Amino acid sequence: MTGHHRRVSGATGHLGLCTDLYELRMVASYLQQGMTAPATFSLFIRPNAARPWYVALGIERVLELLPSFTFGPEELDELERLGIDRPVREALAAWQVDAGELWAVPDGTVVLAQEPLLEMTAPLPIAQLLETAVVNLVQYPTLVATKAARCELVADGRKLADFGFRRAHGLETGVEAALAAYVGGGFATSNVEAGRRFGIPTTGTMAHSYVQASTDEREAFRRFATDHPEHSILLVDTYDTVRGVRRAIEVCQELEIQPRGVRLDSGDMGALAVEARRLLDDAGYADATIFASGGLDEEEIHRLVTEGAPIDGFGVGTALTVSQDHPGLDIVYKLVEYDARPVAKFSGVKSTFPGRKQVFRRGGAPTDDVLSLRDATEEGRPLLQSAWQDGERLLEDEGVATVRDRVRAGLDTLPDAWRRPPYVEQAPLPTIGRCLDELTEEVRHAVVDDE
Amino acid sequence: MTGHHRRVSGATGHLGLCTDLYELRMVASYLQQGMTAPATFSLFIRPNAARPWYVALGIERVLELLPSFTFGPEELDELERLGIDRPVREALAAWQVDAGELWAVPDGTVVLAQEPLLEMTAPLPIAQLLETAVVNLVQYPTLVATKAARCELVADGRKLADFGFRRAHGLETGVEAALAAYVGGGFATSNVEAGRRFGIPTTGTMAHSYVQASTDEREAFRRFATDHPEHSILLVDTYDTVRGVRRAIEVCQELEIQPRGVRLDSGDMGALAVEARRLLDDAGYADATIFASGGLDEEEIHRLVTEGAPIDGFGVGTALTVSQDHPGLDIVYKLVEYDARPVAKFSGVKSTFPGRKQVFRRGGAPTDDVLSLRDATEEGRPLLQSAWQDGERLLEDEGVATVRDRVRAGLDTLPDAWRRPPYVEQAPLPTIGRCLDELTEEVRHAVVDDE
Repeated sequence: MTGHHRRVSGATGHLGLCTDLYELRMVASYLQQGMTAPATFSLFIRPNAARPWYVALGIERVLELLPSFTFGPEELDELERLGIDRPVREALAAWQVDAGELWAVPDGTVVLAQEPLLEMTAPLPIAQLLETAVVNLVQYPTLVATKAARCELVADGRKLADFGFRRAHGLETGVEAALAAYVGGGFATSNVEAGRRFGIPTTGTMAHSYVQASTDEREAFRRFATDHPEHSILLVDTYDTVRGVRRAIEVCQELEIQPRGVRLDSGDMGALAVEARRLLDDAGYADATIFASGGLDEEEIHRLVTEGAPIDGFGVGTALTVSQDHPGLDIVYKLVEYDARPVAKFSGVKSTFPGRKQVFRRGGAPTDDVLSLRDATEEGRPLLQSAWQDGERLLEDEGVATVRDRVRAGLDTLPDAWRRPPYVEQAPLPTIGRCLDELTEEVRHAVVDDE
Repeated sequence: MTGHHRRVSGATGHLGLCTDLYELRMVASYLQQGMTAPATFSLFIRPNAARPWYVALGIERVLELLPSFTFGPEELDELERLGIDRPVREALAAWQVDAGELWAVPDGTVVLAQEPLLEMTAPLPIAQLLETAVVNLVQYPTLVATKAARCELVADGRKLADFGFRRAHGLETGVEAALAAYVGGGFATSNVEAGRRFGIPTTGTMAHSYVQASTDEREAFRRFATDHPEHSILLVDTYDTVRGVRRAIEVCQELEIQPRGVRLDSGDMGALAVEARRLLDDAGYADATIFASGGLDEEEIHRLVTEGAPIDGFGVGTALTVSQDHPGLDIVYKLVEYDARPVAKFSGVKSTFPGRKQVFRRGGAPTDDVLSLRDATEEGRPLLQSAWQDGERLLEDEGVATVRDRVRAGLDTLPDAWRRPPYVEQAPLPTIGRCLDELTEEVRHAVVDDE
């Protein structure tokens, strides 16, 4: 997404082994059986009640890494150790992801469950082997961008900061989280490496340890405000929050500086914010801001905002970077066509629709989306674009600003019941277009006939 | 932990910016104020009801990465952009984590909340700047190793496999998850890269797409069993599970091979396993195993095992690699001493104990642990060891097998109410030793007097 260099996983620079063993077993069998006709896999989120919509993110990362899905000497040794036959290993050694095509929605598109974020068409072994990595690379950015967008909507114009680097699942993941949170929800970040790498605005002032390293709170405030007058958001809850606010005010008066503000990190945020606001205003510091943090998630932010708490910004940590209320997206990559034969699965929530698809967005908002076949003629703007073909990228890297703008524009179209609690109870789904409906019935009959 | 090369985060090879901005602001102020006396920070998990105990993991990773917390030209440019003054940048450019000492429990130790996993003593700016990375590096491995250990205890001798690579928060994180799950719970993994890198046993056979790529299920089974007779665990739920089991049996009879087993991936696992077992036994395939997967977590595994479902092994995916029921550990790194002055915080669940500490394990099990000061004389085996001093490692890399053995030995000591549901409701905590108790009271009085 950025043009900045990012490290790829895999200690050797080859990503071929970033897959599940069953993919390799299947690939070996496909090659032995000559099953190398084109297959189409569709990446989509299964319907569940956890989220009414999602901000798609990670497509650019897939496109960036596709050429790295190769096997070097260490990978081939490992395949031998796993008992993969020589002809299969030789095929994989020569292997490049260079045949086929990938259609995808651009990063930042607001999508519904069941709508493909990406469709890969390639010789069956290639399309199959990519499953694990494609799911992985899209899942986490989409999870966090969606979480961040939900936070932004309930924060209703207040500032947001990602404080979750330390609790992200891995250092590199914390950096990716900062990017997704910025793109999805306009979050600034405490993550300095993310600031360097992606140009995301960074934020941060002081922790409790800073206050405790001084022998008293006043002395700590004095030191910090002297050294960082322009970043003087003082953390006031190390001992007693209200007393902390008073001390912050006294120190600023003594030093004759305008405080940037205070940060509350524990206690009854709503009541403490009212008291802090009153004290700051009485001291003539109407411009000083009140920032809240400490175990916050979207629900608490929504409550504080709707109660009218005088809080100017929220720091969100663990809840954001692990998407705490919903830490794993039910996102899947399913075979929908092999050798020109449409394929589906009919089993309740795990059902899939057959064939290569397109999503048609009618009237701007996802409320009237139609899911149909790739070559259907439906009203509306097609969301999936040809992103890559036979080794050549067609969807160019758009840069962070463009993707952010797309998210903002997408969120603006959402109806109120999709924007903040109480959310619609039933996850909305696209209407199924006529051709897709007919094809599904055909495939269903064929399966039933077979059984 | 392994001697295998693992990539470190940070695109430049310097990890100095893998921190939160507030750490840098505090460090700048500490340097300006000459506050460079030794500080001790203690890493521990806050008491909460989510887990009665934890498998500590990630210490080796911290030791491995300590020398990489440096600032190169790109990092220093970024500091300049952030407005960090030249003298501070010059100090950081020359900076090495080479003074101080780190005490830690060895990886694989079973610990309780409030017990330090690690204590870092170093000049205040150094110890402060490491906070974000140390928390991050220990949090995720501990989270997953603990989850895996809980799964192993409820699985009660059945085989376990990590199927969660695709839903881990990042590719590299999926590889780390496989290691933590193997160490913590004896999980094999589907993750091929983790197998190569750490020598973890890998497992995997076929997905629904393999079945669907053939025109009928029987033909798919025939192909797979022919190509992989030694890995013939056939996935039987693509269309109808019981019919799938019958077809698997027919194909094995036709090909005259012994099936390794079947995998159930949806539906009522208990009832389906009973029926599958009956059909396999009737066909003379008593050695064929039944493997279950599909949205499983520890609770469901416990239910199936206690109901006596004839299931030989479980695949756990998202629930494992994102620790779905508890995706973020409340693990913190708190200042406990500065310049020989013990420091504490008195605020309910966010309270901390002052001073450098030691945990004394009496009688093998953590049930009678005593938390006291580092130099206290208490009965029992001290858990924290001197791991690193003035740039030199003292705790050597032990290798995966030793760490696994330590986990097994630790789990063996746990009382029943800590091993499986219904778990003890109150998270057990160590007894506070006499010297620590006295010091805590002294510090409490000093704080109260100050206010």
